[in-house]
Amino acid sequence: MFGIWGHTHAAALSYYGLHAQQHRGQEGAGVVVNDGEELKLHKGLGLVNDVFKHADFQEFTGKAAIAHIRYSKHGDKNRAVDSVEPLVFHSRSTSIAIADSGNIVNGEKLREELEDNGSILQSATDSELLAHLIKRSKKKSNETAIIEALQQLKGAYTFLIMDQAHMYVVNDPHGIRPLSIGRLGEAYVVASETSAFDIVGATFEREVLPGELLVISDEGLKSVRFAMREQRRLCAMEYVYFSRPDSDLNQVNVHASRKRMGMELAKEAPVEADVVTGVPDSSISAAIGYAEQIGLPYEMGIIKNRYIGRTFIQPSQELREQGVKLKLSPVRGIVDGKRVVMIDDSIVRGTTSKHIVRLLKEAGAKEVHVRIASPAIQNPCYYGIDMSTREELIAANNSLEEIAELIGADSIEYLSVEGMKQAIVREKSIHQGICHACMTGEYPVPILDKREDPF
Amino acid sequence: MFGIWGHTHAAALSYYGLHAQQHRGQEGAGVVVNDGEELKLHKGLGLVNDVFKHADFQEFTGKAAIAHIRYSKHGDKNRAVDSVEPLVFHSRSTSIAIADSGNIVNGEKLREELEDNGSILQSATDSELLAHLIKRSKKKSNETAIIEALQQLKGAYTFLIMDQAHMYVVNDPHGIRPLSIGRLGEAYVVASETSAFDIVGATFEREVLPGELLVISDEGLKSVRFAMREQRRLCAMEYVYFSRPDSDLNQVNVHASRKRMGMELAKEAPVEADVVTGVPDSSISAAIGYAEQIGLPYEMGIIKNRYIGRTFIQPSQELREQGVKLKLSPVRGIVDGKRVVMIDDSIVRGTTSKHIVRLLKEAGAKEVHVRIASPAIQNPCYYGIDMSTREELIAANNSLEEIAELIGADSIEYLSVEGMKQAIVREKSIHQGICHACMTGEYPVPILDKREDPF
Amino acid sequence: MFGIWGHTHAAALSYYGLHAQQHRGQEGAGVVVNDGEELKLHKGLGLVNDVFKHADFQEFTGKAAIAHIRYSKHGDKNRAVDSVEPLVFHSRSTSIAIADSGNIVNGEKLREELEDNGSILQSATDSELLAHLIKRSKKKSNETAIIEALQQLKGAYTFLIMDQAHMYVVNDPHGIRPLSIGRLGEAYVVASETSAFDIVGATFEREVLPGELLVISDEGLKSVRFAMREQRRLCAMEYVYFSRPDSDLNQVNVHASRKRMGMELAKEAPVEADVVTGVPDSSISAAIGYAEQIGLPYEMGIIKNRYIGRTFIQPSQELREQGVKLKLSPVRGIVDGKRVVMIDDSIVRGTTSKHIVRLLKEAGAKEVHVRIASPAIQNPCYYGIDMSTREELIAANNSLEEIAELIGADSIEYLSVEGMKQAIVREKSIHQGICHACMTGEYPVPILDKREDPF
Amino acid sequence: MFGIWGHTHAAALSYYGLHAQQHRGQEGAGVVVNDGEELKLHKGLGLVNDVFKHADFQEFTGKAAIAHIRYSKHGDKNRAVDSVEPLVFHSRSTSIAIADSGNIVNGEKLREELEDNGSILQSATDSELLAHLIKRSKKKSNETAIIEALQQLKGAYTFLIMDQAHMYVVNDPHGIRPLSIGRLGEAYVVASETSAFDIVGATFEREVLPGELLVISDEGLKSVRFAMREQRRLCAMEYVYFSRPDSDLNQVNVHASRKRMGMELAKEAPVEADVVTGVPDSSISAAIGYAEQIGLPYEMGIIKNRYIGRTFIQPSQELREQGVKLKLSPVRGIVDGKRVVMIDDSIVRGTTSKHIVRLLKEAGAKEVHVRIASPAIQNPCYYGIDMSTREELIAANNSLEEIAELIGADSIEYLSVEGMKQAIVREKSIHQGICHACMTGEYPVPILDKREDPF
Repeated sequence: MFGIWGHTHAAALSYYGLHAQQHRGQEGAGVVVNDGEELKLHKGLGLVNDVFKHADFQEFTGKAAIAHIRYSKHGDKNRAVDSVEPLVFHSRSTSIAIADSGNIVNGEKLREELEDNGSILQSATDSELLAHLIKRSKKKSNETAIIEALQQLKGAYTFLIMDQAHMYVVNDPHGIRPLSIGRLGEAYVVASETSAFDIVGATFEREVLPGELLVISDEGLKSVRFAMREQRRLCAMEYVYFSRPDSDLNQVNVHASRKRMGMELAKEAPVEADVVTGVPDSSISAAIGYAEQIGLPYEMGIIKNRYIGRTFIQPSQELREQGVKLKLSPVRGIVDGKRVVMIDDSIVRGTTSKHIVRLLKEAGAKEVHVRIASPAIQNPCYYGIDMSTREELIAANNSLEEIAELIGADSIEYLSVEGMKQAIVREKSIHQGICHACMTGEYPVPILDKREDPF
Repeated sequence: MFGIWGHTHAAALSYYGLHAQQHRGQEGAGVVVNDGEELKLHKGLGLVNDVFKHADFQEFTGKAAIAHIRYSKHGDKNRAVDSVEPLVFHSRSTSIAIADSGNIVNGEKLREELEDNGSILQSATDSELLAHLIKRSKKKSNETAIIEALQQLKGAYTFLIMDQAHMYVVNDPHGIRPLSIGRLGEAYVVASETSAFDIVGATFEREVLPGELLVISDEGLKSVRFAMREQRRLCAMEYVYFSRPDSDLNQVNVHASRKRMGMELAKEAPVEADVVTGVPDSSISAAIGYAEQIGLPYEMGIIKNRYIGRTFIQPSQELREQGVKLKLSPVRGIVDGKRVVMIDDSIVRGTTSKHIVRLLKEAGAKEVHVRIASPAIQNPCYYGIDMSTREELIAANNSLEEIAELIGADSIEYLSVEGMKQAIVREKSIHQGICHACMTGEYPVPILDKREDPF
Repeated sequence: MFGIWGHTHAAALSYYGLHAQQHRGQEGAGVVVNDGEELKLHKGLGLVNDVFKHADFQEFTGKAAIAHIRYSKHGDKNRAVDSVEPLVFHSRSTSIAIADSGNIVNGEKLREELEDNGSILQSATDSELLAHLIKRSKKKSNETAIIEALQQLKGAYTFLIMDQAHMYVVNDPHGIRPLSIGRLGEAYVVASETSAFDIVGATFEREVLPGELLVISDEGLKSVRFAMREQRRLCAMEYVYFSRPDSDLNQVNVHASRKRMGMELAKEAPVEADVVTGVPDSSISAAIGYAEQIGLPYEMGIIKNRYIGRTFIQPSQELREQGVKLKLSPVRGIVDGKRVVMIDDSIVRGTTSKHIVRLLKEAGAKEVHVRIASPAIQNPCYYGIDMSTREELIAANNSLEEIAELIGADSIEYLSVEGMKQAIVREKSIHQGICHACMTGEYPVPILDKREDPF
Repeated sequence: MFGIWGHTHAAALSYYGLHAQQHRGQEGAGVVVNDGEELKLHKGLGLVNDVFKHADFQEFTGKAAIAHIRYSKHGDKNRAVDSVEPLVFHSRSTSIAIADSGNIVNGEKLREELEDNGSILQSATDSELLAHLIKRSKKKSNETAIIEALQQLKGAYTFLIMDQAHMYVVNDPHGIRPLSIGRLGEAYVVASETSAFDIVGATFEREVLPGELLVISDEGLKSVRFAMREQRRLCAMEYVYFSRPDSDLNQVNVHASRKRMGMELAKEAPVEADVVTGVPDSSISAAIGYAEQIGLPYEMGIIKNRYIGRTFIQPSQELREQGVKLKLSPVRGIVDGKRVVMIDDSIVRGTTSKHIVRLLKEAGAKEVHVRIASPAIQNPCYYGIDMSTREELIAANNSLEEIAELIGADSIEYLSVEGMKQAIVREKSIHQGICHACMTGEYPVPILDKREDPF
């Protein structure tokens, strides 16, 4: 998500802001720009570049904008453009645009109540759900209606909401998903990741607090607490692989935290080997940390093909069996005859790991020792990260030995939860708590309806 | 370039073979497939994926194929699809397809002679030039006509030529451009880079020798020497930045040679600093080598935005001045307050280096020491690498101090020619010579027409 | 609109059915297919061919379908795909698809009531309005809820509604818009125009009666009267220019009725001239009738350029002034030196007529006498035909002499209302009444909110 | 073909000029614009609109242009963009652009001679052949080289040739294909059909004479006779169906000549019937003439679907058998129970006629009498019109009774050659001769190599 209030080039800057966060979703993108009278929407399926390639930012003007990238959660089959946010809702009195990130855990129940009272919901988005709750509120102003609506929600969520005169910025009571605010000259900017500030030349101001509603208008910024503030529980997976290495989360640089996770891992799970290699791109930082700590050379044992795009023609089964490679290639000249430590950031189902171990062995690696720079994932996420159901999580159902055998590795070890905290928590304070439910099963927001598939 | 003879899926494998070499050119791509009767061509402007996105490899069949990626040389303004190779020439008796890599230095003179005798040349390609020389030959067979034609050429060149019954593979008398041959089951494969063998599951056999013409047909492979064999002079820039890190050149792995160049550089030009960083992607190997050798931490001080594609909307001048970033972002969390060693593989005009140094300083770097993992480029290349004219080469006209000042660095050092050789030459033999004309001015093939701009 | 129930190729036949009615709207098209479990939607902006060019009717299967072409009414600025019908609404219990043609005159009031009660309406379509009224109904079955909803509507409307088990076909109490039902083997088909039956090989059964709701399911067809049946008031403009010449309306062939209108016009408004010509395509029938009746040769005095499509590059103002022509060309060889009768089907603002008269005069016509094969349009339409506001209607504000002068003609005459009725009413019965409100101001459904602009 | 010399908007006007002639070919289109220094080409496959939809006429500027539409002749399988004209040939001294219409009957022999002398021809176009003949000429100026080259050609041809300083306009010694010259202010314009003059606002000046070469430059127009002038033999099929009705050929309006052909046909081959109908679009003029002459009502018995474009999805065999219609629909309301005279402009293989007769009978026609408004086609065309080989020509191998039976008609009659001449020849003069080889076998240019398939 990206938002900006008070800049002539609001739409173009939103485009660059989305660009910096493209890794957070590839399904679709949208920008709503606000010229004080009208909320104009431009959205579509695909990458930011695809969606905006014919956009004319000379015409798509306004002083404020909110923008969104669609990340399709597991099991969410609806690929239609209707589900791409921001959504815009018009009524006689006002127009309102909404974008969200995260997952409302009592969403199904709230939707049922609305439908039973004659509302028609046209998408599965949390943004549309919130729009209906706002619309049903008897409160007079949008601000009070929004607060009333938010108080009915449970789960992990951040919202950007905009009407003609305000931008509303929302973080859930536990602050599970990242959201920061910054300044670009006089303008306010909001983004899920701070790398978006860097790309547009803005400066970081502070993180949006748990349970905080910011109301930004031409009068400036106002902070409202709409819920009892709980301890911050920022999603650990943001550090592990989801965020960009150049972003800061809780003022901790992501690359640096990954490198420290690799160093911790080297302390906890050393191995005798010849070279250390990482799975590109997200495991490179940890691999370098592991290599530095343990004193082994870091090498590019696996190369990622940069040119595999949407239009890449997948090899047929026959060609694949004959050895045609896809996204990743092992580097024979590096791994042939070597004992390799292969660092990965995490394992979900284990299929990718199995594939890479096989590639390395085929390229001549004598031994492959897998080291995972995060704790084992044993529980589904209900807060917005696309993960498998419990049945599919390889670490939920197998011992370390079994996992090593399943993926064909000579050994496997994970980082401990303590090791991870050591690497990513800057100082012990209420603001520095993290959510590690997928690793430990300690869910900060109770999951009432514990279906196996969280979505 | 990629070629294959004797495989049912010749066209599809060529597609993957081109894919592995996409970094060698982004202007266009083409495949000619040979079903024994007809040479069928599919080509277009743009990336391999773009050109083939609607291709149907079920229909585009044949047992052999040659394929090419267009790399537009400096000053070559013709962006038309007519210049995308392979080119196919039909006459009553035969059809012939040709693709080339490199640059013929007496091409202009040969074209003039042909035109004066009534030939019409429709492109600026060396492949069309060769086709006319073959057509004008009085020799009876294609093989003898090709040899006669090749003997008129001077320069750096590799050719793939195909008629209905043969594939001809050509390397120039000095072997300046890389070209290897491998096997995929019974089939022969040819590629500029060995990474193309890996991606299709083929095994490396040997490099095509200087002055060698291979004639491949259903009868097998025949080697013909069409010129006095000179010492091999493989282009040093292939090691420095042009080839993929997972390719082997002269049986030396490129990543490993780059890492060794970084290590040599650390020995030759150490510096007191806090972190070592590399310009992504091609300088990462050298940066890691430098860091390992000197004992400093390697960090991701600069991030490359992966999603900048053809349709990316460039920021306006106004936005750029306000700080909107493009392809590269510095990582403030890494470089702020630090003394940074910035490793780059090479410098041509110096504009990119200047830009990166500025980004690092803006992100808080206290000092930026630039270390280049190759010797200074002081002469133009006439053999097929797109480089500036002598006037634009920053190292041709400035001292080290002047360069440092021009790019805003606190210091700059280059690797020596000896250090480079040390890193990339496996053993001293006639096959292991390299061309370093752009660094030393020692041109293996005389340049008759020494215009400043080589193209 | 087109609907089909009970055919394996429901979606493909809908495509052809829309195709036959493409002249009724060019803004967008959509098909919803029903496989008994799911309602699958394919829609988009543009012509039917554009929308479905990548559709795979092998995969888009079901036994029933409803389909719609978007005709954008005057002043309806929303060109977004959200307004392209059919619309599909999902709730826990059921899915429902709706398409409409016509215009609800109390729509604004109904929307306000819904919004005041907390509903969110996302488009300006009558279909969405109906969906909300159905959803708000407390009736148990869709059928009874639909009837309750329809009884709140006033205006001219036809609806096709589909849930998993039924297709509902609705005509308003006056039957202002055309809608017929036919058979294709065992299947039922519904279409606005009978030409759609011809194109798919179906046979006409009967017109849907005013105030009739047909419920079609696997059990067959059931007819329900949801409103007091009024005299049929089929829109006269359907005969005049909107329908295809090969369609039958009220079992009267449209081409034949137009030819008779031309003949009546010749009786009422003869003129001494050399040739008769018609404005292509819709006025050709009337022109031939006029020529036959009056005994003058019919000639192609004006040619329509068939190749002007969406991508046609409009000439600049400068080129237009220099004489570059657009859609229509006069045929100098025909009109030069002649007294021309130019037959047009109708005149709204008069700008096109003025343009054509000028073209004919520039091509040498000595005199141009305009004869309009329908009565003068003096009132806006509130029932779904895109026409000007009263201010813009040339016949509302000017005498015949003034009109002739405004458009540059030597004379102008219109057909009388009686003449028109003579030409199009087959027999005097309750089923044969027509709506001629735009000519006479006699609105069959009262217009409560008589704004000048009907939309 | 279209050409213009001496106008600021040469390229844009060429676009409109091609547009007016789109019916002459749909395979591809191209424009070469000349700014006095460079010949810039824009071409592509498909309709004019498709090819130029992204063209920017602000940038594509020059004072002169030649333009071409590709019409693929029977048996010409090469659909590649390489064969789309104009072709541009660059040499050191000059650039030359060429477009052609017609067919060179000794082309094969000339190509063989060129190839034997070492030339490479890359397309099957007559334009490329001419370019090589010009290039091989020892004459000094382009003008003299062109004349020398033309004198080697035999067949039907018109050429537009352009170098930086001249536009050359060529008509063959018999003037078989149409070509006219006109003025647009100071500029000269050239076009195959005069309708192109009308659309750009130019005025007709005269036809280019048989054996005439016009050299147009900034100095004005010069006429050169490059061959003994033979009697003009303009292609009769241009009148019959190829040209637009609003064009003049030999100063005879095409619509008027068609109407007269219909009238002659009515005199020669009357029939007792109820209605006359024509196959849209090219037979409408003749049908009206027939109806007027014989005193029967002309009716729209067959409707052409205007919206069938390139992306139209053809119905499957199964749906076609179930009655799904394609391009033409019969109008039941018109033909049911009637004796119909169906006028067609010509018959080649008879498959379309058979289809239409069947449609009419299925729609209830009691009798269908086919009347063809031109003489029977019994011989192949070697001069540029795409027709069948002799074996496929229905009239070459069958009696009238047999044809009637083959196409399912109750009777069939053709117009006589004398009747056709009567209708289209204005006055008996050397300039008014026509080529009717396909009807009579009298070929004005001897066909040396009488293969059955002319291409």
